Amino acid sequence: MDARTGLPVVGMVGAGQLARMTHQAAIPLGQSLRILADSAEDGAAVVASDVLVGDYRSLEDLRAFAVGCDVVTWDHEHVPNEHIAALEAEGVVVRPGPAALRFAQDKAQMRRRLTELGVPCPRWAPIATVEALASFGDEVGWPVIVKAARGGYDGKGVWVIAAAEDATELLESGTGLIVEEKVALARELAADVARSPWGQGAVWPVVETVQQDGICVEVIAPAPELDDELAEQAQELALRIADELGVVGVLAVELFETTDGRLLVNELAMRPHNSAHWTIEGSRTSQFEQHLRAVLDYPLGSTEQTAPVVVMANLLGGPDGVTPKGIDERVHHCFAHWPDVKVHLYGKGFRPGRKVGHVTALGHDLSEVRARARAAADYLSNGDQS
Amino acid sequence: MDARTGLPVVGMVGAGQLARMTHQAAIPLGQSLRILADSAEDGAAVVASDVLVGDYRSLEDLRAFAVGCDVVTWDHEHVPNEHIAALEAEGVVVRPGPAALRFAQDKAQMRRRLTELGVPCPRWAPIATVEALASFGDEVGWPVIVKAARGGYDGKGVWVIAAAEDATELLESGTGLIVEEKVALARELAADVARSPWGQGAVWPVVETVQQDGICVEVIAPAPELDDELAEQAQELALRIADELGVVGVLAVELFETTDGRLLVNELAMRPHNSAHWTIEGSRTSQFEQHLRAVLDYPLGSTEQTAPVVVMANLLGGPDGVTPKGIDERVHHCFAHWPDVKVHLYGKGFRPGRKVGHVTALGHDLSEVRARARAAADYLSNGDQS
Repeated sequence: MDARTGLPVVGMVGAGQLARMTHQAAIPLGQSLRILADSAEDGAAVVASDVLVGDYRSLEDLRAFAVGCDVVTWDHEHVPNEHIAALEAEGVVVRPGPAALRFAQDKAQMRRRLTELGVPCPRWAPIATVEALASFGDEVGWPVIVKAARGGYDGKGVWVIAAAEDATELLESGTGLIVEEKVALARELAADVARSPWGQGAVWPVVETVQQDGICVEVIAPAPELDDELAEQAQELALRIADELGVVGVLAVELFETTDGRLLVNELAMRPHNSAHWTIEGSRTSQFEQHLRAVLDYPLGSTEQTAPVVVMANLLGGPDGVTPKGIDERVHHCFAHWPDVKVHLYGKGFRPGRKVGHVTALGHDLSEVRARARAAADYLSNGDQS
Repeated sequence: MDARTGLPVVGMVGAGQLARMTHQAAIPLGQSLRILADSAEDGAAVVASDVLVGDYRSLEDLRAFAVGCDVVTWDHEHVPNEHIAALEAEGVVVRPGPAALRFAQDKAQMRRRLTELGVPCPRWAPIATVEALASFGDEVGWPVIVKAARGGYDGKGVWVIAAAEDATELLESGTGLIVEEKVALARELAADVARSPWGQGAVWPVVETVQQDGICVEVIAPAPELDDELAEQAQELALRIADELGVVGVLAVELFETTDGRLLVNELAMRPHNSAHWTIEGSRTSQFEQHLRAVLDYPLGSTEQTAPVVVMANLLGGPDGVTPKGIDERVHHCFAHWPDVKVHLYGKGFRPGRKVGHVTALGHDLSEVRARARAAADYLSNGDQS
């Protein structure tokens, strides 16, 4: 409890853009997010007052951070599950908790549990040997997708394998791996929901996510021309997963829509997620506010869309990098060209391929809104106007 | 220049709710607002990282604060104009600058200048003696409104005077005073604009402001049933004043709409203003983002309204105060009742009559939206549901 405001204190472990945008959403709630940062220079650490610098892999640092927090939540999945469990055992309120989080931290556990629950997934298997991989690939067809069970993100820890021998080195590295069939993909979707501790659920419209080299570059809300029944099915699936796994906070369910019209779960994330950045301007309640409402055990907010079409495009650092002078000039030109595109910069250096910000455009006409978001993002990323 | 981000640094003197909400708007622009606070416990100081505690009345403190700022702006009008002029003379970029700010700091200078510009104002005069007051009142009719030329806000520094003798003590106090006719008021309006250093102007829809005991309690955007011609006249007036006075940043022009259909200027504020808090959710560009864009010399953003009707209602501390436990419970109930009302808490204690937050409701039907905003604000202020 913050004695000054009379409000509970939320701590977030991790100080990347998700914590940065969560802090932004915390301000109107009368909150000031308490943040555990790797460095005082992290994107969220430079905009918040209550920052502890420490190591999220250290139980001692986590314990020190938890003192004074009424609830602790997460900006990423990399905090060791056993540490989260230890905090919980010591009486710290952790949301989401370790029992839910392990399904976002370990793909083998996630696939096993979802399969038990009858949730449609790509065919998959845990693998440890070239023989097992060969037998799986021969059964479902080559190529297959090999994934690190832990620690992957943004296309990292994912390999397309055309023949079992190609994975020999990977299999010998000792990394825990799973293999999945390469599904016949029409497109990728995401169903984002939030769940409160007592089980209230809220769901945003299903979105289409556009990936490039395994990185999300664009999100369209709602997913264009998505069959109503399939949209409802995706939303119900996401709410059911949140409930069955006991998630508290935002749950992003990344989905494959297959060429034969099925939905398969790709990944789960139990935190604010790139697929819902559009909600900052595009929904009555942003995912960041909703995550805070959920972990604070407040009733959830309306997920009504504020415009018929909302498109979010990520800014990725360009191959040339950006000089300090460069980005300020780009912002000038961007604002001059697109006075109604909303810009979000994460306070990070523009390393090539790195997510350094995003833009959001709203309107009525899909192709117009999409072109506007794309052009603004390309211009900010590269200084080119496409 | 922030070497880490390559973006210019904005400093704001003052750490109240305006600075708090400006910092919130600074985050997506890649900024972290640098703040000069009276105390480390101020509403803005507790949510920002780059905070200096100091005295805005001390030129030394202002100088120390300005080091490392590319531009300095203001959360209130109380910084001595001569200090602002001294900073400017020393090469600090101050926006708005001293030449404009004096018209927001001194009502006598404001009335004189606006009168020169042919801007419609209530009849007025500077007064120093009971005789001068008597003669003014006899001419325009009693009662009259006496105002402190400097330092008033939220109804403070304003007196309704029925007879010249009633102001004897006030006149002898040495406070600089002006007197104005009491106009036949239909209602109060505000025309809020922003102006950039090179003269770009942007204007929001004209709003109706509802006052209670001299404090703004409600703002309706756009002003209901306002004659189109009068609305345009108000907008043009505000843009012209911004231009003539050389304002940079947000300018709020408070207006009287008289019973005979005229517009008269009441007050000017050269900073984000209570009459435009509705823009956070209700306009494509909030006044806080727009103020930053203006002082950063970025092109201004779209002022398009995001819903046909937007109502902002202030939260005022109730007569009983609020125990720490009280406010958290009220937020719970408020969110449960009104899942689409947006709540803004300023991180302040709930002293009676103090502005401690606001709520915003959006929709299509004026009376429904207004009732929703009013009920949520009353509930959060008092724990009563009206």
